[in-house]
Amino acid sequence: MQRFFVNPEEIQGQEVVFAPARSRQIARVLRLKNGQNCMVLDNRGGELLVELTQVEAGACRAVIVERAEAQRERIDLLMLLSLTQREKFEWMLQKCTEVGVSTFQPVITSRSLVQQPVQTIAKYERWKTIIWEAAEQSARSRLPELLPPAGLAEAVAEAARRCQRCLIPWEGEKARTLKGALAGPAVGSVALFIGPEGGFAEGEVQQAVNASFNVVTLGRRILRMETAAVVSAALVLHELESTEADDGGTGSSGPIG
Amino acid sequence: MQRFFVNPEEIQGQEVVFAPARSRQIARVLRLKNGQNCMVLDNRGGELLVELTQVEAGACRAVIVERAEAQRERIDLLMLLSLTQREKFEWMLQKCTEVGVSTFQPVITSRSLVQQPVQTIAKYERWKTIIWEAAEQSARSRLPELLPPAGLAEAVAEAARRCQRCLIPWEGEKARTLKGALAGPAVGSVALFIGPEGGFAEGEVQQAVNASFNVVTLGRRILRMETAAVVSAALVLHELESTEADDGGTGSSGPIG
Repeated sequence: MQRFFVNPEEIQGQEVVFAPARSRQIARVLRLKNGQNCMVLDNRGGELLVELTQVEAGACRAVIVERAEAQRERIDLLMLLSLTQREKFEWMLQKCTEVGVSTFQPVITSRSLVQQPVQTIAKYERWKTIIWEAAEQSARSRLPELLPPAGLAEAVAEAARRCQRCLIPWEGEKARTLKGALAGPAVGSVALFIGPEGGFAEGEVQQAVNASFNVVTLGRRILRMETAAVVSAALVLHELESTEADDGGTGSSGPIG
Repeated sequence: MQRFFVNPEEIQGQEVVFAPARSRQIARVLRLKNGQNCMVLDNRGGELLVELTQVEAGACRAVIVERAEAQRERIDLLMLLSLTQREKFEWMLQKCTEVGVSTFQPVITSRSLVQQPVQTIAKYERWKTIIWEAAEQSARSRLPELLPPAGLAEAVAEAARRCQRCLIPWEGEKARTLKGALAGPAVGSVALFIGPEGGFAEGEVQQAVNASFNVVTLGRRILRMETAAVVSAALVLHELESTEADDGGTGSSGPIG
């Protein structure tokens, strides 16, 4: 079933009044019909089963059939991604959204291909659309957040403030694995810092370590930046979510429907 | 240090006589110089530290300085990849090689975009180059093998013959995880079957199950085909290689140099 994230103002009482861009997508691209059901997510924990009552390119409406709690995403995963060439960066946003990342922090490191925040801001609308579409397509229940670009010092300090465990995969580390770094008491929020293609510059890894990041190895194979991003995100969630499952901990927000 | 996989005939006694294409790459693309060291892999377990003695676009030579055993890749991971659009397929070959896949089996399923083996064979040279380059770049010690395209029945039968555990991620499965499916006695060879973008057709999953495949879930998020390929390959190797590490089992073929 088609899933849509909507803005709060699109939900009006028992109705969903879709925004114009979304209405066009429903009517023209997806060619949904009156009477069809879809799932609307409010990105605040609600999941609404709706039935389309009006399908027009400029104005679609639906009536809410059932309200449920969306499956909670229990692990907060913040990805610090060094800014790099457009295609690669967009690819990382898409794939990491599918895999389950909650927040993206674009970072300007000394070897980032992009050095000026202003070059980046112009791309934010496009990037948000990529994240939005990937989140819908992969059945996420939360729309990942995209933070403004930041320099390394600011980014690592903010990550350390937000997250219980901060990890930085680096080819210089040979011993500490992701699994090892995530062992111990249950962790609910993790930051992962993916370096630029040329690698971190002298001192940058140390700067992150000083801000409480743990250096980890992703194994003996050398991964490209974009591969490292999607693989490390998947491994972190796999480790933490399977621990959860081992605890039998589905709690009150288990699967719905 | 630059790493090269060479064919057996390029190693002649104490010398490496590089093939013409490789010589061009060394001289023109990488612009290596006489006296520089590089690592030559024979794809049969040998890792040779060599020093370049002749750098010419048509004919490069090197003398072997040291012979070592390449780090053994202990897990055989066979990926059955449904044939799909060119870019996506090439991307999967590249990323899955980085991550550690040992063998690729292109498969024609009923929803594969490509239906004729003959359309595929023409691309084999290009695909082999992609795998070869990714293997060098990611410091693999073994060059993944690319099998000829096969239909589903043939591919699953061959996978079952080759591998101790055969897994097929499928959105219809909700309970059995990769971790669960790999639990138990140590496994040295795994097959993973990645379905086409439209999903498997009716009966195809059952056909694989009949050939001893286990259906698994990759979690509640729905991954695109290419994301599922790289993520599931990484998770399988992560599970099996970290079990290995937990056993303290580096054995006789531990890290070299």
